[in-house]
Amino acid sequence: MKGIFSPGRVAVIGVSAKPENLGRNIMLNLIDFGFDGVAYPVGPNGGAITTRRIYKSLADIPDAIDLAVIFVPARFVPQVMEDCGQKGIKRAIIETAGFSEYNDEGKNIEDQVVAIAEKYGIRFIGPNCIGVINMENGFCVPFPRLTPFIRKGEVSIISQSGGVGLSIMNHMAAEGIGLNKFASVGNMLNISAEDLLEYYIEDEGTRTIFIYLEGIRDGRRLMDLAKRSPKPILVMKSNIGELGQSVAASHTASLSSDDRVVDTAFRQSGITRVHDVTTLSHYMKTLLLPALNNKRLAIISRSGGHAIVAADACETVGFELAEFPESFIRDIEKHFRASVIKLTNPLDLGDLFDLDVYYNIVEQTLAQENVDGVAFLHTSVARTERGPTRDLIARLDALSRKFNKPVAVYVSANSAEISGLRQELDFPIFTHIVEMFRALKLDYDHSQAMADVVLEEESPAPIVDKADVQQLIENAAAENRDLLLNEAMDVLECYRIPTVRGLAASSAEEAGSAADSLGYPVAMKVISEHISHKSDAGGVQLNLRDRDGVIAAFHDMNTRIRTAFPDAKLDGVMVQPMAIGGRELILGGRQDNQFGPVILVGMGGIFVEIFEQASMRIGPVSRKDAMAMIEELNGAQILMGARGQKRFDIDAIADAIVHLSQLLTDFPQIRELDVNPLRIFHEGNGCLALDARIIL
Amino acid sequence: MKGIFSPGRVAVIGVSAKPENLGRNIMLNLIDFGFDGVAYPVGPNGGAITTRRIYKSLADIPDAIDLAVIFVPARFVPQVMEDCGQKGIKRAIIETAGFSEYNDEGKNIEDQVVAIAEKYGIRFIGPNCIGVINMENGFCVPFPRLTPFIRKGEVSIISQSGGVGLSIMNHMAAEGIGLNKFASVGNMLNISAEDLLEYYIEDEGTRTIFIYLEGIRDGRRLMDLAKRSPKPILVMKSNIGELGQSVAASHTASLSSDDRVVDTAFRQSGITRVHDVTTLSHYMKTLLLPALNNKRLAIISRSGGHAIVAADACETVGFELAEFPESFIRDIEKHFRASVIKLTNPLDLGDLFDLDVYYNIVEQTLAQENVDGVAFLHTSVARTERGPTRDLIARLDALSRKFNKPVAVYVSANSAEISGLRQELDFPIFTHIVEMFRALKLDYDHSQAMADVVLEEESPAPIVDKADVQQLIENAAAENRDLLLNEAMDVLECYRIPTVRGLAASSAEEAGSAADSLGYPVAMKVISEHISHKSDAGGVQLNLRDRDGVIAAFHDMNTRIRTAFPDAKLDGVMVQPMAIGGRELILGGRQDNQFGPVILVGMGGIFVEIFEQASMRIGPVSRKDAMAMIEELNGAQILMGARGQKRFDIDAIADAIVHLSQLLTDFPQIRELDVNPLRIFHEGNGCLALDARIIL
Repeated sequence: MKGIFSPGRVAVIGVSAKPENLGRNIMLNLIDFGFDGVAYPVGPNGGAITTRRIYKSLADIPDAIDLAVIFVPARFVPQVMEDCGQKGIKRAIIETAGFSEYNDEGKNIEDQVVAIAEKYGIRFIGPNCIGVINMENGFCVPFPRLTPFIRKGEVSIISQSGGVGLSIMNHMAAEGIGLNKFASVGNMLNISAEDLLEYYIEDEGTRTIFIYLEGIRDGRRLMDLAKRSPKPILVMKSNIGELGQSVAASHTASLSSDDRVVDTAFRQSGITRVHDVTTLSHYMKTLLLPALNNKRLAIISRSGGHAIVAADACETVGFELAEFPESFIRDIEKHFRASVIKLTNPLDLGDLFDLDVYYNIVEQTLAQENVDGVAFLHTSVARTERGPTRDLIARLDALSRKFNKPVAVYVSANSAEISGLRQELDFPIFTHIVEMFRALKLDYDHSQAMADVVLEEESPAPIVDKADVQQLIENAAAENRDLLLNEAMDVLECYRIPTVRGLAASSAEEAGSAADSLGYPVAMKVISEHISHKSDAGGVQLNLRDRDGVIAAFHDMNTRIRTAFPDAKLDGVMVQPMAIGGRELILGGRQDNQFGPVILVGMGGIFVEIFEQASMRIGPVSRKDAMAMIEELNGAQILMGARGQKRFDIDAIADAIVHLSQLLTDFPQIRELDVNPLRIFHEGNGCLALDARIIL
Repeated sequence: MKGIFSPGRVAVIGVSAKPENLGRNIMLNLIDFGFDGVAYPVGPNGGAITTRRIYKSLADIPDAIDLAVIFVPARFVPQVMEDCGQKGIKRAIIETAGFSEYNDEGKNIEDQVVAIAEKYGIRFIGPNCIGVINMENGFCVPFPRLTPFIRKGEVSIISQSGGVGLSIMNHMAAEGIGLNKFASVGNMLNISAEDLLEYYIEDEGTRTIFIYLEGIRDGRRLMDLAKRSPKPILVMKSNIGELGQSVAASHTASLSSDDRVVDTAFRQSGITRVHDVTTLSHYMKTLLLPALNNKRLAIISRSGGHAIVAADACETVGFELAEFPESFIRDIEKHFRASVIKLTNPLDLGDLFDLDVYYNIVEQTLAQENVDGVAFLHTSVARTERGPTRDLIARLDALSRKFNKPVAVYVSANSAEISGLRQELDFPIFTHIVEMFRALKLDYDHSQAMADVVLEEESPAPIVDKADVQQLIENAAAENRDLLLNEAMDVLECYRIPTVRGLAASSAEEAGSAADSLGYPVAMKVISEHISHKSDAGGVQLNLRDRDGVIAAFHDMNTRIRTAFPDAKLDGVMVQPMAIGGRELILGGRQDNQFGPVILVGMGGIFVEIFEQASMRIGPVSRKDAMAMIEELNGAQILMGARGQKRFDIDAIADAIVHLSQLLTDFPQIRELDVNPLRIFHEGNGCLALDARIIL
């Protein structure tokens, strides 16, 4: 991947001398950004550009080439790739649009390009993108004309949209956040966002990674990479709703995924999702500071009003104000002349106007063991203070590194002064107090999340009867049907999820005998591959109290279903003992195209309407995860035993979740699975699956 | 109030020729902002400033003066006010700090100032503030040195902190939002934030009002003013938490109020609360556009990527994309050359590069009846497009006014270009897509909320036995105690809140007879002014099944309470029939210092822990409000009859809420009131207060 960002010799293909030529922009960008290699313009009409010869073909270039930037009409791209292969070029960036995102003919060309690349072993970015920027060596090849608009810094970007990527870099520039590398990935025919992420995680110049995605290609790889990344990863994923998706389909070849699954996957792998650019830039800033490892902050402010806003924000995001020991207060008191202000945290600098003293106070504060970070609020910068302010902030930067604690600096001044400071300083400056604290919170959360992700335990796999399940699934698959109710219940039993042990029966008499042997009252449910919503179809009869009742119910059920679904094949009924007491949960799972098995648990019964939210995890789910899923439930207090009520069997629920996760991981053939309801009982009494559906 | 913002002749008191003199800044600010009146500098040392004579005293000024700006040390302020009075000055702005916010001596001086102002009928702003800016006439008197840093516009500001106010104006300037009037109110000894709000509501130059508050002085007046205001009012209220409050006490003389009450009051009166400056500036921008009266938007974008982000944001905030009729699509198709892009909403302008065509498309779109507003996304502005872009946006401004529909304009470009556009245009430019849609949502919500506030019905007062309650309260007040349990239940009955009708008894025998007459089972509760948490004290016995049980329980209760509270005066017991069935709610109210009666309703019983949140309103509560309170409850579905369960008696709950509100409004002496539990039954069966506490 280094070859993509740091080529020595580059051919830019599609350049002409005409001023409106966009390939020409690529050459000019390389020149303006000070590319440290050699660039060879190529275009069929030849001519010259900025005193360089435009080669009529690749073959004319006397030197070996490391990378080709291709910006010729789509129909010529296969030939150009062929030429690249012939010349031994192993890296390419194809910026041209008009491929699969455009029409079928484009898809056709795409396939040719992929084949040629494979033949010659060419790795390439694109097509349908604006290429790459590397601020470390001035390699800047987007086709829009750019002047060096952003500082070199430590944030690297992967963007699925060139336009959105450029917008974000503009915002970063305005906020004084430096860029390390940028890549617009387009249709990702060869090099994917995940490939680039893997590279950025190892890249020395990159400290924070930002990814803009419209779709997720390989969710599991993304998760695996993110879990292993010591660097913070921020992701903005658009194309969330139906409205956006209709555009995205034609814009890039994005697969849309269930947005809640994306949220869950990101949270599980320590990716921070952002939904707007303002939040993004605040986060980028704070993640460039040393990590905030605990919650005790000191606020040092030049204005009382700002101190109040800051203290509010500090509390709102859940931080504490470090308590200053008496000795420390006596120390800093010496800096104050008249001592008219009560010294406390937040520390109001009041009538102190000496910036050197500010520095000393911040240093003394950072030295306090119970201070994990400092929020420094600098306001109303007079014009004469410009120089000293810049010097102070530069020195605070050094202090922050020295103590390895974040010093978040807020400055209130007019925008010209802020821009000036940002141009001169390589240190984040916040201009919004509340957002600064939210950003510090992210910094803190991120350090916590990273710890959590690393420490995640792997549960021992439960001992299960995998072969039996394999057999049941193969049988159903052979008959091209989903699992029947009794089979589904058997599968659960095989995976140690207790079910209400019912008996299958194919006649009224058999049902009666089954009920006799189970004891009354019983429930009866239809078994049929054609009827998945049994209750709606009249296929569930509850509370049958004797043999006659069972036999009558069998006939009644049969008649009703035959009337409603004349074509349904009936495979008999399941007779179950009625489960008494307890509460109902819903347990389920499905295979997500991008992320694999997804496990859900939610409140059932009357609560299902009230607590619509369910807990979700990407599998495999550890026991710790399972407990967290239960605790997350809206209504968890009911399960935990609210207000002196008895606690339910949380262990049993957690086991059921872990085992279900194992089942879905072992059998990707199971497309969808519902245990509804899972009846749970008080502590020590376990749980029972009363009904189940398994869709292949 | 006009005299404060538009004086003809102004004396600035506290000016010297020394460069570090802050009074001098005030004079220079007036000059730089082009004040259209006459300013007379006054200072005891005389001398000259910018070729003007500094008068040694007010009396030396030969002309009559309309307003005095006072910036002399606190101890001299009373004399200066006296001088002002003598000279017949009726308006003053006192910027000096060091009054009650500082120490007791300062409080003393404050009292003198107030007395003098009263004697001479002087209305004044301050002290402890930075004064006033009026962009209409250049009246700019803050003591920090300002250069004209912000455009004249239509947003007016009231700020309780000078520093925060300046920060916000800096942000407005950076975002291109114009200012009309600014007032820093400080300690509000005479002119309050509410006075200024009343003035801004009527002020012709003001279109949107922003208030920064650290405390609320007169909450009811604020609500009344806001309810009548046709102009949007945005409030940022800090000093929310405990951390902030400790600073605020010393910073300004702010009364802190329960933040949830503030939220409720604002929502009820159509005030939009903002918690950060970013949101504030987005809202300020959108509120300068015509109101968005319905949810159907058109998105017109120059970039596909931005269109996706915009469509997501549109859906996320709850808007719809207007459907374009076929005829309209055929019309705009004519603008496209190759017609390679499918024309739909969001409309991707794709390969169209003609800005005049953009204008025509926006115009045609606005003309569509089913389009309520347009989001126009303009990206990657080439340098050659600067002029045309500015002209296009200016013309979109005119279009927006013509059709009276908002055209929200987003521009992606580097910050220099954005600043340039903002300096040249008097039209809001958004640079963040997601925030733009959130802002449009605010615009929409605001127009809806204004309609709601205006349409609020006044319920007819319930017919109640006010005199009886008066008597009960007077009796208790005379004995300097709160109401006893039986009295509290009587009060509820007087206000038509049904109670479980119990009988008071003062001996075991009496209790037994009472129980006999009520029928079994019964509950027994202690009556004592000294025991407010009866259950904890052993003062509640439930489910007593016969006379012997009642008598035994009486003795048992007596013993337990005597042991635990040897000094408590016992006034007997209340014997109540046991209420069977139903669910429990908690109903309560209290007097808020700033807002008056506050009414709460929450889920009770097991749900109290699960749904911690309660619904709250500032009284008086109309029946419509009461219904809304119930619907707002987390768990309302249970009451409404979730999943085929029976509906509870919502009407009865609503009545109880309205009557309780009436009670608290009629009797401000009732400091706190709890009905816990209010037992509610299925529809038609009403509700019963089982227990009540009334604190005077």
